[in-house]
Amino acid sequence: MILNKEYTHRYTLTAAQCNAQGELAPAQLVQHIIEVATEHADELGVGFERLARDGNLWVLSRIAIEMDRYPRLFEEYALTTWIEGYNRHFSERNFAVTGPGGEVLGYARTIWVAINMESRRPADLSSIEYIRETVSPRECPMAKQGKIRAIDPPQIVHDYRFRVSDIDVNRHVNSARYVELILNQMDLADYDECMLRRFEIEYRREAHYDDTVEVCSAMGPDGLVTAIMLGDEAVCLSRAVMLPR
Amino acid sequence: MILNKEYTHRYTLTAAQCNAQGELAPAQLVQHIIEVATEHADELGVGFERLARDGNLWVLSRIAIEMDRYPRLFEEYALTTWIEGYNRHFSERNFAVTGPGGEVLGYARTIWVAINMESRRPADLSSIEYIRETVSPRECPMAKQGKIRAIDPPQIVHDYRFRVSDIDVNRHVNSARYVELILNQMDLADYDECMLRRFEIEYRREAHYDDTVEVCSAMGPDGLVTAIMLGDEAVCLSRAVMLPR
Repeated sequence: MILNKEYTHRYTLTAAQCNAQGELAPAQLVQHIIEVATEHADELGVGFERLARDGNLWVLSRIAIEMDRYPRLFEEYALTTWIEGYNRHFSERNFAVTGPGGEVLGYARTIWVAINMESRRPADLSSIEYIRETVSPRECPMAKQGKIRAIDPPQIVHDYRFRVSDIDVNRHVNSARYVELILNQMDLADYDECMLRRFEIEYRREAHYDDTVEVCSAMGPDGLVTAIMLGDEAVCLSRAVMLPR
Repeated sequence: MILNKEYTHRYTLTAAQCNAQGELAPAQLVQHIIEVATEHADELGVGFERLARDGNLWVLSRIAIEMDRYPRLFEEYALTTWIEGYNRHFSERNFAVTGPGGEVLGYARTIWVAINMESRRPADLSSIEYIRETVSPRECPMAKQGKIRAIDPPQIVHDYRFRVSDIDVNRHVNSARYVELILNQMDLADYDECMLRRFEIEYRREAHYDDTVEVCSAMGPDGLVTAIMLGDEAVCLSRAVMLPR
């Protein structure tokens, strides 16, 4: 068993992958974060396969991203991940995004919760206690995620019905797709003028195929707060801070 | 200058990339096709950069895909591309999709047209005449794309307004996004029961941010025919043939 405390995945931003600003789209960054977390967990022997043996699975609970700038078209970049904290119920996993020559472009923090597949209740991870040894002292110089409170009434509301292309292998809505729906609450001109400096999302419950949600946003003192509502329940809550370019 | 007649890009299907059926999503395959075509053209010195020097650019005009099966979760697969035909105005580029051990999973045909950036009229590619030498005799054992005629009146109609996440670096709607909108005309249960055996798309004109289109489908004798309409004009036309699994 390899117990590397850090794991790095290198990418090059191709034209087909970049957004209207010629940069890595934030939702694609979220997709990478999930991919790299999965790869490192697999390497440590605590991936989905290992948890499934005990009838458990990892659920992504929170992501916070803080970027100085996003990788640009044709640029090489990398995501490096490490575990900051770990206990019987959840793990805190951080990321550094670096550009050419190791320039730091930004950081991300994630929280993963292990649950039992059947009961959907918190799992007990004491059978993979050795994961504690892989906790790294490396610092993540961005603020931890704060509590997000939906703003009532919202100022921007769009309906969306989940279709085939939104569903992942677990038959839930893809985690990155929620990020797209949230960031689509702003206009193309907003992204031309500003960059997404900080983004936080808290996943509360799963949405499924054919569910119709209301994406509800309002500008608050700490940025644009969005709740994706399925009836009276929030599927996820987020906060986005934009900074002039 | 390397003039390799074939170019191969290898992939592994990660959980984050696969669809509800645990397979490579057809729209993701289209994204790969565009990526691999771009990489090979760049290697041959006839990529977007070279064409831009003459004020021209490549526009993807048609794609046809025919699959025996799609790559599955965790499977290694590859796309190999070659040029079948080339003249002053357009090029025909084919693809083979292979799985572990070189098993052929399917094929694709594409047609790329060079246009002048300013006039939007067909470009003259005689300045890159040497590309003829890279035409490969390799056969592509799938039928060429036929003419697609929209069926009037349509049986399934959905409106869609293009948002920030749908726009690519050229400020047009992403070519793969149209494929998602078209395939979203069918239900999740359809894809559980059937696979997309053959898919053809003809791109007619560009849609832009904030355009609202009508996605109009009808079942015809040769499969599900879809037109994405922007007012009275078709943005693209497609035909999809499903086969029971």
